[in-house]
Amino acid sequence: MTTEDLVATARRAASGSYSPFSRYRVGAAVVTEDGSVYSSANVENSSYPVSQCAEANAVNYAISQGHRRITDVAVACLDAEDLDGAYPCGRCRQILNEFGVERVMVATAEGDYRVHTFGELLPYAFTLDPDEREPTQ
Amino acid sequence: MTTEDLVATARRAASGSYSPFSRYRVGAAVVTEDGSVYSSANVENSSYPVSQCAEANAVNYAISQGHRRITDVAVACLDAEDLDGAYPCGRCRQILNEFGVERVMVATAEGDYRVHTFGELLPYAFTLDPDEREPTQ
Amino acid sequence: MTTEDLVATARRAASGSYSPFSRYRVGAAVVTEDGSVYSSANVENSSYPVSQCAEANAVNYAISQGHRRITDVAVACLDAEDLDGAYPCGRCRQILNEFGVERVMVATAEGDYRVHTFGELLPYAFTLDPDEREPTQ
Amino acid sequence: MTTEDLVATARRAASGSYSPFSRYRVGAAVVTEDGSVYSSANVENSSYPVSQCAEANAVNYAISQGHRRITDVAVACLDAEDLDGAYPCGRCRQILNEFGVERVMVATAEGDYRVHTFGELLPYAFTLDPDEREPTQ
Repeated sequence: MTTEDLVATARRAASGSYSPFSRYRVGAAVVTEDGSVYSSANVENSSYPVSQCAEANAVNYAISQGHRRITDVAVACLDAEDLDGAYPCGRCRQILNEFGVERVMVATAEGDYRVHTFGELLPYAFTLDPDEREPTQ
Repeated sequence: MTTEDLVATARRAASGSYSPFSRYRVGAAVVTEDGSVYSSANVENSSYPVSQCAEANAVNYAISQGHRRITDVAVACLDAEDLDGAYPCGRCRQILNEFGVERVMVATAEGDYRVHTFGELLPYAFTLDPDEREPTQ
Repeated sequence: MTTEDLVATARRAASGSYSPFSRYRVGAAVVTEDGSVYSSANVENSSYPVSQCAEANAVNYAISQGHRRITDVAVACLDAEDLDGAYPCGRCRQILNEFGVERVMVATAEGDYRVHTFGELLPYAFTLDPDEREPTQ
Repeated sequence: MTTEDLVATARRAASGSYSPFSRYRVGAAVVTEDGSVYSSANVENSSYPVSQCAEANAVNYAISQGHRRITDVAVACLDAEDLDGAYPCGRCRQILNEFGVERVMVATAEGDYRVHTFGELLPYAFTLDPDEREPTQ
């Protein structure tokens, strides 16, 4: 799948957005290490902290299907005025970091998109090694 | 799909669990208003608050695919010692509430499962009507 | 502190609410096992899932100050139309459960409030024993 | 308060950490626009996604007390092996972004600490303007 196609897939995925509270429709498409593609959208909740972003939803679903690495992520915010309003939030970047994402495409409803290396979006990322945790309390 | 089959689907879905931190593998399967079935698993993160539970993951993905109502949810915790350790957390119940879930099945790796009406699990549920929010600040 | 005073404290605490997105101002006051009182409010974020509810904020702060048990929680939603719109969400109930909360008071901006035992709000609560986790993956 | 003192406050605050699941004790101290200081610690939950990080806890509590801007944040991870394991996660950075944080200090249990401008930690940050949301659904 080309980068253009991945962005187009993210845009189409936004049609599934459940966002009656923010009215901010977002779609995302991700590519796994073996080239599989999954797409999803943001899903909000009456209790805002329980909401889920589009790219988080897509990554978490892909992982749950047995994948363990994501290489590319495209995010499309249909209701962003410009590309500056379409970037993944910090929480989503933390999720992307867990699974080795390399490239992130940022898009609005139409027009050009931007491509970033993941390192440009979350420098000094936090990672916890599950095998090195030692009881200290 | 029978209730038995839904529980079996939830158990199989747990094989996709990414839970290196809790080592608590959970699978979930949900039925939408038109009879579609989606299954998923829990996906953790180095930053614990960024993790996602299995039933939340399954519901959010189903909704993002265009569905707006979920009728049944089965949850299976492979590493729970008994059924008491396999119930959905409060946050997941809040997600189920948003989409009208009616029945919840709770299971461990094998053996019998329990069936609950949703009202038994989240009485006095909180719901916010997006159309009634009025600016007050 | 009387129950009336605790509810009044929760109402006053709502003045600190940062809720430009939902415009739903909520305050909370909690009592710890030794009678200390902490109050807080909801704090939202441009990324909705990163928001925090009032009672979650109050409990988490009290715990971080060294307390390990909360007995009473009062929640006051200034912008709820009636008591039915002022209940803690499921995620907050999960937080209350972790620290042994016994009683929950639900209030709006003024007038009567309701008192619930915690068991009425989160039956079959999920709890994980940190000492019983065994590596299974 | 000097930067050294703020880091020391964050280290002491970690003693309030409730982290029986990760056994990763973290403390945080924040300075508001008028020079007030608040400190807190991480508070975990049986349901991992419901947990709260130390710096998120400190910021959210400060905001709930009426402040609207945070200038400095110090984070101290007592159980990190080195400074690389002590950085704020992406979700916390999103919270810091909402309130204009300028400087972030990263520390372990003892020894030197690092100072970062916020822009170094969350480039291209996502912000939603509550006044520009227009109904589109």
